[in-house]
Amino acid sequence: MGSHDDHRFSPLITLTTDFGLRDSYVAEVKGVLLEQAPGCQLVDISHAIERHDVLEGSFVLSCAALRFPARAVHLAVVDPGVGTDRRALVARCDGRLFVAPDNGLLTAVFDRSERIELWTIDAEQLDLPPAHPTFHGRDLFAPVAARLAVGLEPAAVGPPASDPCRAVPPAVRSIDGSLEATVLHVDHFGNVIIGLRPEHLDGALPTTLETGPDRWNLQPALTYGGADPRFVLVLWGSAGYLEIAMARDSAAQRLGLAAGDRVRVGRGAGAGGNC
Amino acid sequence: MGSHDDHRFSPLITLTTDFGLRDSYVAEVKGVLLEQAPGCQLVDISHAIERHDVLEGSFVLSCAALRFPARAVHLAVVDPGVGTDRRALVARCDGRLFVAPDNGLLTAVFDRSERIELWTIDAEQLDLPPAHPTFHGRDLFAPVAARLAVGLEPAAVGPPASDPCRAVPPAVRSIDGSLEATVLHVDHFGNVIIGLRPEHLDGALPTTLETGPDRWNLQPALTYGGADPRFVLVLWGSAGYLEIAMARDSAAQRLGLAAGDRVRVGRGAGAGGNC
Amino acid sequence: MGSHDDHRFSPLITLTTDFGLRDSYVAEVKGVLLEQAPGCQLVDISHAIERHDVLEGSFVLSCAALRFPARAVHLAVVDPGVGTDRRALVARCDGRLFVAPDNGLLTAVFDRSERIELWTIDAEQLDLPPAHPTFHGRDLFAPVAARLAVGLEPAAVGPPASDPCRAVPPAVRSIDGSLEATVLHVDHFGNVIIGLRPEHLDGALPTTLETGPDRWNLQPALTYGGADPRFVLVLWGSAGYLEIAMARDSAAQRLGLAAGDRVRVGRGAGAGGNC
Repeated sequence: MGSHDDHRFSPLITLTTDFGLRDSYVAEVKGVLLEQAPGCQLVDISHAIERHDVLEGSFVLSCAALRFPARAVHLAVVDPGVGTDRRALVARCDGRLFVAPDNGLLTAVFDRSERIELWTIDAEQLDLPPAHPTFHGRDLFAPVAARLAVGLEPAAVGPPASDPCRAVPPAVRSIDGSLEATVLHVDHFGNVIIGLRPEHLDGALPTTLETGPDRWNLQPALTYGGADPRFVLVLWGSAGYLEIAMARDSAAQRLGLAAGDRVRVGRGAGAGGNC
Repeated sequence: MGSHDDHRFSPLITLTTDFGLRDSYVAEVKGVLLEQAPGCQLVDISHAIERHDVLEGSFVLSCAALRFPARAVHLAVVDPGVGTDRRALVARCDGRLFVAPDNGLLTAVFDRSERIELWTIDAEQLDLPPAHPTFHGRDLFAPVAARLAVGLEPAAVGPPASDPCRAVPPAVRSIDGSLEATVLHVDHFGNVIIGLRPEHLDGALPTTLETGPDRWNLQPALTYGGADPRFVLVLWGSAGYLEIAMARDSAAQRLGLAAGDRVRVGRGAGAGGNC
Repeated sequence: MGSHDDHRFSPLITLTTDFGLRDSYVAEVKGVLLEQAPGCQLVDISHAIERHDVLEGSFVLSCAALRFPARAVHLAVVDPGVGTDRRALVARCDGRLFVAPDNGLLTAVFDRSERIELWTIDAEQLDLPPAHPTFHGRDLFAPVAARLAVGLEPAAVGPPASDPCRAVPPAVRSIDGSLEATVLHVDHFGNVIIGLRPEHLDGALPTTLETGPDRWNLQPALTYGGADPRFVLVLWGSAGYLEIAMARDSAAQRLGLAAGDRVRVGRGAGAGGNC
């Protein structure tokens, strides 16, 4: 018996999409979930993933999902290929269940998981009514998530799968003693999250940041408060990645950085620099 | 016994408003609902309806409400006439319960329902404390929705009503073999939803679209993915309306269309055109 | 036994933050709450508080919290000083429980409460794992809110506290027979909420408004609907404060007002004026 058979609490389903909050789309999905998993609890992770940006969705989903009870089912739909022949997956990663298109949206979840099992959703085997070709979130993924949330075994959704699509992981390159990496995400506060973990840097914070033309000296910090607002701060962020921040200001705006940008960090002597 | 007396699950209430998510207004309504229907489950349909736009609210509400379990009570407040003498209604449409001002907000729900019953809310009969004249959502509609959700019979809210206000339904006109209709909604992805259903077009997709000065050839499609990104796609959208879309682009932006615009579609030979 | 031991319903927790809805931050907090208070019901008050704006957060939180059942636990995190030595508080105000940083975020709640009790959260005493220094919302405040929601006595979180930080209350000044006060909030509709209550004005609505260079005659109103759209309306808003509004228009935009602005209202004869 797995944690998804725990009947002490209501079934629990999270939602991560790029649907936005203006239209009826998210609510249509929730209506189906409540119809098919009566009494289930629904928690939004985010519906503001950049349209079609599976990499961003993957990052946000993986950061949040780890914090939820293991019995939660995570429904994720950022799906530019909806209605084409891309597969629809159920994944069990270290005991957590995910329902998503096979387009890289689970990349960061896979990267952080030790044990991964996959199944391809077979709509016929599940006897699902025909899905509208533009809205598998409502007609295919939601019914499957609902059934898993009320106890269906993942193996019952369809045949085992392998070789899931992974979004190309932004490479970390070592160049002349500095490391080149990618901005994974800019958060609501303008903090810049870079695809580097302590293991890339032997746990030590870098002292310089190059962003194309500019070179910045970095001030090591534990948190934002109390720092001199002119400093560009560097710290290990709350999701375990390298983070560039400024006290009460948007580092992304001040440094001109956005998700996807390549930057270089180093531990060289701070020669000059803009700060 | 109706479905709203089903005590196996918590009472279920959805919310559709133009209140936005920045202020305390939505939460004030939810506080009242939880106070008066303890343990009820609350699901947002949308709080980003354009300010005072009852037509948009009507469209979004009707698309979402149909997907919910029949036991849900749908609270809808887009209410430019709050505090004036417009009536406050409870409607039972094909068994589903709606609580809303009588200002056209239920138009699309009525249009899609076979059996409609209406009651005018009588605050005195319900012994409700005086409502603040600018916030009937909190002080009048929410208490009524809460009571319905825990089993109050709709007939107990006040006298039966008839002739509800309907937003003028945008006319579909036949002109020189083409059909003139209205853009109902532009969604988060820039897809353009037009007030035409298969019955208007004998089920066949049109091949041309005129938007004032411009004329576009339309590419019939089942979904967005895989299509040539230069094509203007036409399909039957997930809510059953004609939809104009582009693969990974905003058709609304590319074609310069917004909700309320009039367009013409036809099945003439594609003579020239911008695409 | 307090209302937070009421086991007939699920534990109830509200959330007020400046985290926005795009990132995983709100969901990470919710995951922790659901992990540590299984089955708890979560209700968002707002996550769109202006970044680091404890005064706005305080206003929105106080307006909403009063509407909730007394058993709710209110978790509020607008926390520019996260990870510094500012205290973390639990407050019981007229029986309602709040968990928040000690930075003024509870000012408006305190102002509206008769009986206030305070405790400083002692993470060691609660045996909490080390908090990430940039995310006390997830690692410190959420676990405490979860425990309170399932029945922990507030006195068990740490030692009693006093002298909480209060955001400087914007002074109301009497000048030449008019009152100078501050714009507390501009809402989603552009209504301007001013820090004046009926007791400041003997319950009578003012007739003039000065906003720096401009002077406006005010039209007393009970609500927005039906008013001449050229008039600048004045009324007692739904939260009990003086409100400046226009029918179907944004008064803030038309009058050039924003939160924090100082304005003067009076009951002088309307001499000229822009309207």
